[in-house]
Amino acid sequence: MLKYEQIANEIENYIYENNIPQGTKLPTVENLAADYQVSKSTIVKALESLVLKGLVYQVRGSGIFVRKKSRNGYIDLNVMTGLTNSLKDFHITSKVLEFDVIRPDEELIKSLECDPNEEVYMIKRIRYLNDDIMCYEESYYKKSIVPFLTKEIAERSIFEYLTSALNLNLGFSDSYIHIELLDSKVAKLLDLDTTSPAMIFLQQLYLSSGQLFNFTKLTYHYKHVKFFLQSSSIK
Amino acid sequence: MLKYEQIANEIENYIYENNIPQGTKLPTVENLAADYQVSKSTIVKALESLVLKGLVYQVRGSGIFVRKKSRNGYIDLNVMTGLTNSLKDFHITSKVLEFDVIRPDEELIKSLECDPNEEVYMIKRIRYLNDDIMCYEESYYKKSIVPFLTKEIAERSIFEYLTSALNLNLGFSDSYIHIELLDSKVAKLLDLDTTSPAMIFLQQLYLSSGQLFNFTKLTYHYKHVKFFLQSSSIK
Repeated sequence: MLKYEQIANEIENYIYENNIPQGTKLPTVENLAADYQVSKSTIVKALESLVLKGLVYQVRGSGIFVRKKSRNGYIDLNVMTGLTNSLKDFHITSKVLEFDVIRPDEELIKSLECDPNEEVYMIKRIRYLNDDIMCYEESYYKKSIVPFLTKEIAERSIFEYLTSALNLNLGFSDSYIHIELLDSKVAKLLDLDTTSPAMIFLQQLYLSSGQLFNFTKLTYHYKHVKFFLQSSSIK
Repeated sequence: MLKYEQIANEIENYIYENNIPQGTKLPTVENLAADYQVSKSTIVKALESLVLKGLVYQVRGSGIFVRKKSRNGYIDLNVMTGLTNSLKDFHITSKVLEFDVIRPDEELIKSLECDPNEEVYMIKRIRYLNDDIMCYEESYYKKSIVPFLTKEIAERSIFEYLTSALNLNLGFSDSYIHIELLDSKVAKLLDLDTTSPAMIFLQQLYLSSGQLFNFTKLTYHYKHVKFFLQSSSIK
């Protein structure tokens, strides 16, 4: 992690942990540079990244101000992966339904951009938000990139394991979002009636090298989950 | 607009208009600086903003690469306001159902963060994506910030009018997203059965000064609209 990213994280945590209200003016660049003992240009870069992340806004000639935080109970789409980690206000738990190593079918070959012989970890889980069912998750990891995974790891945070134990450099994600009506199998897993609607996320995760390593289909419980999205520019 | 933002827009348009495929390496910072006749630091800032917008990714020691574009038919959540303008691949049209100046009720006072005496433009529209119904939209603008608006303007692009005619400096937006089952009135407007699901966006738009000036409720047709979301970091 670069210095400015580290400072950006520290400022973000400071705002978060102290529950700094919307509209609060941050200290000047000079003061932040003195506080964090880094150059002004590092502070400027850190603040620019926080503007683009939707955490603060800049009023030219006036200063940097804190933006609104996600309302209680809303999942922040700006930090939507690694849920166990990013949903600091929530208690997330998982129940593993299936765990296996498979060869991808045609659809998965496309979604994971892999070849038919590639070995793939398949994990099906129910995830809980506090005590409510949050989603049904089908997740696929390329074994060539994630060489070792167990049911026990999947019961906890796979994300934590990938970053801390395997030391993978996670990069970025693409998500495709639409509404589907549930079939009876998934409806039962979510404890909903058949043909209830669900928000579907089809998600591809990449390493920072640009390599695709994961495809996940998330089926969100429409009554238990709401989302929050901040954009840093209107255009 | 600052110089680096202008360069970022030009690079974005270049990638977009030339349909540069995913994984393509961009020219070096040195070459881009020469091409655009600006300093290397301006190029670095422009590229950093494009990384955070999810348009390109950076591989340390290797270069900057183009990321995947929204699939055909998907609305990009990273550029979700000013639809007429941002959905370059789509033909967006609007039909105004109601247009009025009102005093806000209690709910709207909260959503627009205004006082009960504030005059507010109320616009109800159906928006079409190519020839399909895209959404039903209820939008509220503070008259103190948007002093003049007409039904004719609302038939076209309000966004275009705000930026080009009124010269407003648009800032950022907050969106709250959930699924609702339609009541009979809105179902009819969307040409769907009552209790069909819909993706609901509750959206607040701010000027770059941080002033809230608009609240919009968007009810998306669940069969005609899909969304795409790129995140620049996984955490």
